[in-house]
Amino acid sequence: MNEEFRVIFDYMESCMRDMAHDREHIWRVLAAAVDIARNIPEKVDIRILTAACLLHDIGRQEEDADPALDHAVVGAEKAYHFLTESGWSEVDAGRVRDCIAAHRYRSGCKPPATIEGKILFDADKLDVTGTVGVARTLIYEGAHNEPLYLTGANGMPSEGDLPGEESFIHEYHFKLSKLADRFFTEYAHNIALRRMQAAEQFYLALKSEITESCEMKKRLLENWTD
Amino acid sequence: MNEEFRVIFDYMESCMRDMAHDREHIWRVLAAAVDIARNIPEKVDIRILTAACLLHDIGRQEEDADPALDHAVVGAEKAYHFLTESGWSEVDAGRVRDCIAAHRYRSGCKPPATIEGKILFDADKLDVTGTVGVARTLIYEGAHNEPLYLTGANGMPSEGDLPGEESFIHEYHFKLSKLADRFFTEYAHNIALRRMQAAEQFYLALKSEITESCEMKKRLLENWTD
Repeated sequence: MNEEFRVIFDYMESCMRDMAHDREHIWRVLAAAVDIARNIPEKVDIRILTAACLLHDIGRQEEDADPALDHAVVGAEKAYHFLTESGWSEVDAGRVRDCIAAHRYRSGCKPPATIEGKILFDADKLDVTGTVGVARTLIYEGAHNEPLYLTGANGMPSEGDLPGEESFIHEYHFKLSKLADRFFTEYAHNIALRRMQAAEQFYLALKSEITESCEMKKRLLENWTD
Repeated sequence: MNEEFRVIFDYMESCMRDMAHDREHIWRVLAAAVDIARNIPEKVDIRILTAACLLHDIGRQEEDADPALDHAVVGAEKAYHFLTESGWSEVDAGRVRDCIAAHRYRSGCKPPATIEGKILFDADKLDVTGTVGVARTLIYEGAHNEPLYLTGANGMPSEGDLPGEESFIHEYHFKLSKLADRFFTEYAHNIALRRMQAAEQFYLALKSEITESCEMKKRLLENWTD
């Protein structure tokens, strides 16, 4: 491995805990980012992009410990300090910092201003599409003790819209299924569209199994009341 | 709800923590069990079956705290004591205990001897088939800090056979994909075969996405070495 990136990679690994954002997530994001960079017309600084991909989630521990913190903001500052202390110029470290600060999914965040920032954003979003996105979301739910689904007053599975609901169904319905419009590059958008078909197939089969089971449960409870 | 079962249900809820074995798992197992009972020629004691379904996982907390314990054995004894203290006869409580003691997946366990025990076993196994089985397994991996997959020395995703591997790929490869032969009733076996197709579709799409990403990562690292 390139020595400069090995130092960054080792620092990244020392910051990671969460299995939905483990080192393989970092590798997938980096691989997707380089793939995007090679398939778009814009000129991309691969060194900046690589450092930004490797370090984009190093603020997650802090956010897990204090949900008021934003891991993009924390991670951007941590990355800046690590890189300048590792001999990077303030200008280059600042470009990496700006990519990381703008990589977040949630609305209200500052959009990425540079092509490297846009590619990191797209590559990170790609890792929530498809079956990998479904699997990572379920792993995240398990790690945060959130359920697969909830049932409403009618005994049927919620569409994710119960007050305060946090469940896989909620995540899929309000986030995963709406990802397609959030890409900056056409190249990543097209990959997302293809992968989202597999995620939707899974979701529809899951909803069907759950609904069938809830209907059987309803009939069971009706018999008990008789 | 039937008062006798409400008391059992409340006790069950007081014992449950894990989101892969939450109250909805219990409802799905119970609904599937009653469905199986209605579609097989054997005469089934629905009261024994219902109590066994409701209580079959009440020993999970103890196993989570001490992995040397077997939740089927612990749960069977807890259920027996709870039921006899709730006014059930020793004979009926014993029949429920025997169902729970034999409900476990792992090899080496005592197979269920009664039709109620066989149905509980099948209904519980059905909940690991299909997309619900995939989702519950991923939630379990997340709750136990286990990864989606590992990569071998060649940089490619493991087939689940690395030494000591615990990952979703391992679980799917060695357990979920091999469930079809483990059913006692033909009725549950046929439901399992149908559901396992959706699980396999998900797994194949996941393997394809992961493999593609690992191949890109390999090329990336080769370029770094140049």
